[in-house]
Amino acid sequence: MTNWQRYGRIDGAVLIVGFGSIGRGALPLILRHFEVQPSQVVVLDPDDTHRSTAEGQGCRFVKAAITRDNYRELLTPLLKSEGGQSFMVNLSVDVSSMAMIEFCQDLGVLYVDTVAEPWAGTYTDPTLTLSQRSNYALREQMLELRRRRPGGSTAINCCGANPGMVSWFVKQALMEIAGDLGMNPAEPQSRAEWAALMQAVGVQGIHVAERDTQRAREPKPMGVFVNTWSVEGFVSEGLQPAELGWGTHEKALPPEGRRHDFGNGAAIYLERPGAGTRVRSWTPTARAQHGWLITHNEAISIADYFTVRDGEEVVYRPTCHYAYHPNDDAVLSLDEMAGRQWEPQSRFHILDESEIVDGADELGVLLYGHARNAYWFGSQLTIEQTRKLAPDQNATALQVTSAVLAGMVWALENPNEGLKEVDEIDYRRCLDVQRQYLGPVVGVYTDWTPVEGRGQLFPEDLDRESPWQFSNVIVR
Amino acid sequence: MTNWQRYGRIDGAVLIVGFGSIGRGALPLILRHFEVQPSQVVVLDPDDTHRSTAEGQGCRFVKAAITRDNYRELLTPLLKSEGGQSFMVNLSVDVSSMAMIEFCQDLGVLYVDTVAEPWAGTYTDPTLTLSQRSNYALREQMLELRRRRPGGSTAINCCGANPGMVSWFVKQALMEIAGDLGMNPAEPQSRAEWAALMQAVGVQGIHVAERDTQRAREPKPMGVFVNTWSVEGFVSEGLQPAELGWGTHEKALPPEGRRHDFGNGAAIYLERPGAGTRVRSWTPTARAQHGWLITHNEAISIADYFTVRDGEEVVYRPTCHYAYHPNDDAVLSLDEMAGRQWEPQSRFHILDESEIVDGADELGVLLYGHARNAYWFGSQLTIEQTRKLAPDQNATALQVTSAVLAGMVWALENPNEGLKEVDEIDYRRCLDVQRQYLGPVVGVYTDWTPVEGRGQLFPEDLDRESPWQFSNVIVR
Ligand SMILES: NC(=O)c1ccc[n+]([C@@H]2O[C@H](COP(=O)([O-])OP(=O)(O)OC[C@H]3O[C@@H](n4cnc5c(N)ncnc54)[C@H](O)[C@@H]3O)[C@@H](O)[C@H]2O)c1
Ligand SMILES: NC(=O)c1ccc[n+]([C@@H]2O[C@H](COP(=O)([O-])OP(=O)(O)OC[C@H]3O[C@@H](n4cnc5c(N)ncnc54)[C@H](O)[C@@H]3O)[C@@H](O)[C@H]2O)c1
Repeated sequence: MTNWQRYGRIDGAVLIVGFGSIGRGALPLILRHFEVQPSQVVVLDPDDTHRSTAEGQGCRFVKAAITRDNYRELLTPLLKSEGGQSFMVNLSVDVSSMAMIEFCQDLGVLYVDTVAEPWAGTYTDPTLTLSQRSNYALREQMLELRRRRPGGSTAINCCGANPGMVSWFVKQALMEIAGDLGMNPAEPQSRAEWAALMQAVGVQGIHVAERDTQRAREPKPMGVFVNTWSVEGFVSEGLQPAELGWGTHEKALPPEGRRHDFGNGAAIYLERPGAGTRVRSWTPTARAQHGWLITHNEAISIADYFTVRDGEEVVYRPTCHYAYHPNDDAVLSLDEMAGRQWEPQSRFHILDESEIVDGADELGVLLYGHARNAYWFGSQLTIEQTRKLAPDQNATALQVTSAVLAGMVWALENPNEGLKEVDEIDYRRCLDVQRQYLGPVVGVYTDWTPVEGRGQLFPEDLDRESPWQFSNVIVR
Repeated sequence: MTNWQRYGRIDGAVLIVGFGSIGRGALPLILRHFEVQPSQVVVLDPDDTHRSTAEGQGCRFVKAAITRDNYRELLTPLLKSEGGQSFMVNLSVDVSSMAMIEFCQDLGVLYVDTVAEPWAGTYTDPTLTLSQRSNYALREQMLELRRRRPGGSTAINCCGANPGMVSWFVKQALMEIAGDLGMNPAEPQSRAEWAALMQAVGVQGIHVAERDTQRAREPKPMGVFVNTWSVEGFVSEGLQPAELGWGTHEKALPPEGRRHDFGNGAAIYLERPGAGTRVRSWTPTARAQHGWLITHNEAISIADYFTVRDGEEVVYRPTCHYAYHPNDDAVLSLDEMAGRQWEPQSRFHILDESEIVDGADELGVLLYGHARNAYWFGSQLTIEQTRKLAPDQNATALQVTSAVLAGMVWALENPNEGLKEVDEIDYRRCLDVQRQYLGPVVGVYTDWTPVEGRGQLFPEDLDRESPWQFSNVIVR
């Protein structure tokens, strides 16, 4: 067997909250890459379908649901059981990230999650305004928490593939474009320097451009939402308003675009669900494709991170949004849910590795609008490669679990940094850890723009002067 | 073996033009249901992949492409070879229906086809206006041909499933609703009486509401357009402008709606391709679904047929359009083609019966806006039933080929009626012939309307007073 690199020792307990497709994929990587005994690891999930997967690896399984009312009582003994510094790895749905972070900081426990999750029911609570149901609002609450209690033990929020890894890709891609443009800049040392470089390179915007080509062996049954990762997670974010970091190159707010009346103003939302909002984008395999503008934390955090201000005034910001073409079964599932007027199917199914015939999760960032037009940089991880690299997961999950691993390594190496967004941590170190699990990581320039081939058979109202306007990107 | 009913003798040649998925399905039905020797039948197609299928049934196969320039020379000897009255069954793409009809009438040959097809290239000729590329224009040319040369040997245009059979379903559904409303009308004897009945019943409009649930054994390969019937046909009509018969209950033209400046004015077109136009509709299995508003001849002919005029003035007309949810592979294929900015995939594939695991083609008409809200009447033919009923075809094809059979029977029984639309021929006789091949033919009332469940999570601009307005039906 391979001699896996160990990135450090964990003395305390490792509490994995949620043992779904990501939790099950993360567990073997944690056991593989840290000095930790399986007996130190506790897996908690209200659904014990996969109990034997955890117990078979020597870990303890606790069947329980975390709620607003029980979490301190339920989790404190699990995190204290070992003595030494413990770690919470939150890979659940319906459990508030904010609550977990504050709680972990109270206990001095390190923390990583992959999403800014609210308590159950928030995403589709019709008593909340669209603005309150947004990821923008969730992120603002997180930033507010950090202002309220700065410092403390390290907690990394949104450290999955996207949100997560893609923020590291953005920095690497930016350095590469700058290099290719002959700018050869020194590596920026602060947020302000990174933003200045983004502006100097002339990037108008960034798509998190993903194409999942993993094909299922069995055709999708009617009435089942099938996906390659959390259906609950995808349905929730699909029914939130579409959101995007709103760049300074944009000439006009879209007709259904709305600004928030609080927070830093980096993003807007659309008065429509992401699950019903298509956007033109590009990945190397698919080439031109229509993705979905699903709201994601990174669309907001990246746009915010790369904002250049002159005093209070925003002088530069890239547009940033997700352009996600999920796998075929998920495309059909979205179509079915749209037909049901957004009432989710009664059955959910996540394709595990053994149910997939072939395909890849091609996940990267498309930095556009600069002198070289557009550059896609990302991972093209196939299911075949995934099977060789790690057990119990498909390609989608491995891109997430390896980012969780990278985040855990950084947290262990930097245990007192307080609450961090992934944009703020060392992208080189993280990619250095993660890269072994990403398959080919490639950068490709393309001449494609969202006006290519448009207006031929049918008249279209296009801005050909400024091809990357969001008005050209959205599919009407 | 079953003793198949023979509907009459064909003395001359039977020329089947086009031996694609429909031609191959039609051939065994023709041999089964007419007194005709296989040696009288000639199959013509430029692609001879399926030569042995024709020859294996004792028929002659001619490998040739019909063109504007060669058709008289090429086809005359084939139609004259037998003496007696010949029949042309045109099941090809790219061959002008008008040219074939005029030619057949010159020779006194009976004729049936399933679409008003133009010569190759018309559908995507950018030198034509959208109005000129419409099915409205093709139908007007056909009506003009009939005005120019009335009478003659019978030629039935657009006699497939839809266009075709669905026009017969509309009449039967209308009689059933009228019965259920206690009106018990005598069967209308003329177009004007049919239109008056439609008005009296209070129908605001009609969807040709289809859900194809046939599932392929193999997952769709990238870069291939997969469908359950002619990909060429579907791509062509998908890239024509969306068109609909425009009813008198509609309050306002859609923003992208345009009227034609010629012809009878029964329909409008939208300045967008049908392949990119979604509409809310309903079928018994799918229940609420988003179909595609693909332009179809019947949307126009049905709206026209049921128009009530007072002098020149239109006082009543139902809205009518297609609301097609093709099978999953075709949904994915449309998505892929949209991503390619309507450049069709380089490879086409029609699923034959052996490649399908299960599913049905649920094809019917939804008559809406009357006192019972909406009534779906149609065929729910499964692939399993299809296999028992007829060889060499899937469920989609059998609904078409059995309509072709019905049309041929009617033509043989009424050989001197000139050019006919399916709305004008005896729907009872046709369904009587066809029904043995349609599986369950059912009528179902539903309470569903296109405003059901709308505006809950997101604000929407709805006309709740008049739920069946097209503005509520189209997906924005
Ligand atoms: N950032 C990224 O790239 C990325 C990618 C994939 C998934 N995710 C997120 O990771 C999380 C897990 O994804 P997944 O694919 O494993 O999802 P999943 O649906 O397979 O698993 C979620 C698990 O959470 C458990 N759970 C539900 N309620 C709980 C509660 N009250 N307390 C504890 N556990 C509870 C469920 O039983 C389930 O096993 C989701 O939040 C998802 O959105 C992030
Ligand atoms: N009304 C309906 O319900 C309905 C339903 C399905 C199909 N159709 C129509 O029926 C026709 C056949 O459908 P299909 O599924 O068999 O299509 P297909 O694509 O399988 O077959 C079409 C055939 O036409 C042949 N062809 C092409 N150019 C030709 C030429 N110049 N001369 C002679 N033959 C030529 C092709 O080689 C091919 O074999 C299409 O026009 C389609 O639109 C109508």
